Amino acid sequence: MAKDKKLVEAITSRDEDFTQWYTDVVKKAELMDYSSVKGCMIFKPNGYAIWENIQKNLDAMFKKAGVENVYMPMFIPESLLEKEKDHVEGFAPEVAWVTQGGMETLQERLCVRPTSETLFCDLYKNIVQSYRDLPKVYNQWCSVVRWEKTTRPFLRSSEFLWQEGHTAHATAEEAEERTIQMLNLYAEFCEKYLAIPMIKGRKTDKEKFAGAEATYTIETLMHDGKALQSGTSHNFGDGFAKAFGIQYTDKENKLQYVHQTSWGMSTRLIGAIIMVHGDDSGLVLPPRIAPTQVMIVPIRQQAEGVLEQAFVLKERLDEKFRTKIDDTEKSPGWKFAEQEIRGIPARIELGPKDIEENQCVIVRRDTREKFVVSLDEVENKLAEILEQEQEDMLARAKEFLYSHISDATDYEEFCDAVENKPGFIRAMWCGELECELKIKEDTTATSRCMPFEQEKISDVCVCCGKPAKKLVYWGKAY
Amino acid sequence: MAKDKKLVEAITSRDEDFTQWYTDVVKKAELMDYSSVKGCMIFKPNGYAIWENIQKNLDAMFKKAGVENVYMPMFIPESLLEKEKDHVEGFAPEVAWVTQGGMETLQERLCVRPTSETLFCDLYKNIVQSYRDLPKVYNQWCSVVRWEKTTRPFLRSSEFLWQEGHTAHATAEEAEERTIQMLNLYAEFCEKYLAIPMIKGRKTDKEKFAGAEATYTIETLMHDGKALQSGTSHNFGDGFAKAFGIQYTDKENKLQYVHQTSWGMSTRLIGAIIMVHGDDSGLVLPPRIAPTQVMIVPIRQQAEGVLEQAFVLKERLDEKFRTKIDDTEKSPGWKFAEQEIRGIPARIELGPKDIEENQCVIVRRDTREKFVVSLDEVENKLAEILEQEQEDMLARAKEFLYSHISDATDYEEFCDAVENKPGFIRAMWCGELECELKIKEDTTATSRCMPFEQEKISDVCVCCGKPAKKLVYWGKAY
Repeated sequence: MAKDKKLVEAITSRDEDFTQWYTDVVKKAELMDYSSVKGCMIFKPNGYAIWENIQKNLDAMFKKAGVENVYMPMFIPESLLEKEKDHVEGFAPEVAWVTQGGMETLQERLCVRPTSETLFCDLYKNIVQSYRDLPKVYNQWCSVVRWEKTTRPFLRSSEFLWQEGHTAHATAEEAEERTIQMLNLYAEFCEKYLAIPMIKGRKTDKEKFAGAEATYTIETLMHDGKALQSGTSHNFGDGFAKAFGIQYTDKENKLQYVHQTSWGMSTRLIGAIIMVHGDDSGLVLPPRIAPTQVMIVPIRQQAEGVLEQAFVLKERLDEKFRTKIDDTEKSPGWKFAEQEIRGIPARIELGPKDIEENQCVIVRRDTREKFVVSLDEVENKLAEILEQEQEDMLARAKEFLYSHISDATDYEEFCDAVENKPGFIRAMWCGELECELKIKEDTTATSRCMPFEQEKISDVCVCCGKPAKKLVYWGKAY
Repeated sequence: MAKDKKLVEAITSRDEDFTQWYTDVVKKAELMDYSSVKGCMIFKPNGYAIWENIQKNLDAMFKKAGVENVYMPMFIPESLLEKEKDHVEGFAPEVAWVTQGGMETLQERLCVRPTSETLFCDLYKNIVQSYRDLPKVYNQWCSVVRWEKTTRPFLRSSEFLWQEGHTAHATAEEAEERTIQMLNLYAEFCEKYLAIPMIKGRKTDKEKFAGAEATYTIETLMHDGKALQSGTSHNFGDGFAKAFGIQYTDKENKLQYVHQTSWGMSTRLIGAIIMVHGDDSGLVLPPRIAPTQVMIVPIRQQAEGVLEQAFVLKERLDEKFRTKIDDTEKSPGWKFAEQEIRGIPARIELGPKDIEENQCVIVRRDTREKFVVSLDEVENKLAEILEQEQEDMLARAKEFLYSHISDATDYEEFCDAVENKPGFIRAMWCGELECELKIKEDTTATSRCMPFEQEKISDVCVCCGKPAKKLVYWGKAY
């Protein structure tokens, strides 16, 4: 058992050093590795498989919502990137430039896409002529590049994987509707599959996307009380349409500009899963998104019939669950520790005594609760246990989130809360950039969102004391 | 009907101008569009959806074959690319170089991956220590960039989508076994899903992959008789392992180099589907890979109950088939023409008279055969029809392939065959590069592969008359 302990002890405890805990977990659970390319990470099988499950389920929701997938080039000519002024200002400082192709120096630099609004605009300009061509609701799954100075696995890296949806609509109303629809879809996905509750709201002008009229966001809290922006949905109005000349003839045969949106979620979600659900033994994966849902660990596997019965059980479970069996020569304790580090939602222990009594032991990863289950009803019982685990994980995440929101009505209270109460701080705001800047300067907290459910918890701005316009969620953020 | 005819007539006939036919089809079927980025194409929904189905089915076969998916950075530092001499010589002339990141000039150029052997070697060097860590059977789905001078949609473009598998094994035998296993898997996939038969064989040294010991290939014929290399599988031996220092300790505690393979198929397969199965009315998609399998076209849809019944039928079919309904205001004839251009395998016509008689008309895309089917048994009948269509498409493709292979035993016969008999030419070869070069110079035909099933159709090389070593498939190729 000494060896088993060592494996677990190698993970720093969350309360001791959360940053180190995170680094330990992503490495020990074999989710990622560092690469020779500065700021770029390697998604190893355990990490990439989580992304595959996110893709599969989110993409199914997209398709039900009328989204069509496409694939656009990864390069953007500099002149195309420059067409929308705010957009290029926001992104130019952090893009990678291709200047040579084969043996030749390019006449025009190409940037590796940091996001693809400009390419979609260029396409829509060509394929949208009439109101009959609208709406266009396209999405692509791809990688994007943003030259980051400081990086952290899954949360911030120079290259990351994401989906980016880009739509064009006949009217402003339809565009706004799609913007909100996709934000709601994101929140529903995170709650249902990742067991992560979200606060939905609108970004302040300071925090909105470069070129957007309005940016909506879903935000949640990590175990250390810091906020994570988990998905955004932007309404561009007709700003890009005017910059790119995307016009259609309406039913009255008049030329109109289209109204556009874009929305994205990324591999950052893997970071959220880790930091919301993980514990001191490692990863804890929600059953619906876990690449492996059940790990069968044979006990005394050299004993006659044990491995054989374990494989019989695996074959049965394979039909309903993503099942693996650990038949390596490691000790059961070592296997338990590995299964826990990897966050596999259920472990099944099966030894000679169990087989004799026609039973097995199911252990929940999140609570470590043990269930002695008859082999005759293992499928039903396992389904129940996983369903309950998923539900409980969401309930605990909600409990954590809502118990880490505090209100502040004056600046002293606000600064104290940032310092001493990890989580979101609700406070009123006058709407002025100066106050946002001062708050960030004084406390490092930023405005996370103006929640859809607005309340008036005081009459004046928490910072300047002038009349308040909006309730804002503030917090330190990743 | 004039309008309907126009839509169809816009496609050049295959025999008149095959290249123009191809361009017409990819545009009219809305598979792709050209982009503002030189040599890069846009995958539109109809085109990308074919790739999604390829991915889904091929990936399922991979997973059954023990393949694990990962994702590696898209950039390769120049020093890493240069580690294996043959490899860098093969790829350096056609890569895109990133020289600036954000506002800074990079100290070392990064190439956008043309293929990722070097990155996988860099990873394996770090994670493989003992025989217990082997084999590693990793794959990634991604886009790659090769700076091409002349491009053609799906067949050759500066950026394309593919999968690249990279493996590391303890022994040379195991590596060779995996190389062949994946080639066979590719051929099986193409036959089963794409209804395209393949010739399997080994590439000559001249045609093998930069850095490989042996390259195996699957080759097939397009409608114009030109060959298309459709997938390759490479055995690297321990060449990369020595260049990168990838060593493991074996059971006897001795240091050994690993043996490696790589294998890939790409969006080029979409080009193969088009050029093997398409006809003068447009695309013909194999039912198993078609994004939409059935298009319901209501006849006299303004008549009472027609649209309603059409949607009832769609809902029924949705459970078993990828079904769409065309309820636009276009004429039925126009809708038929569009469905045919898009290659949708089955059309269902449903009008007031059909409803009265509790029937519908199913029309096969490939043969245009019509079936009057009772609405009570439409699911079974449709399943049968699609199954038969898939089977017949493969049978016709096989018939075409095998009837376009001719033998040549002397050079005159060979040159005449290249000129006058579109397809593969089987001829013996002495094994010398000079003869390959001369044949290419004289005829533009290249060696496609040395088939696994070797025969001796004459004693001497078709080119130089020296003793023959191998039977080779030759042909003009894309």
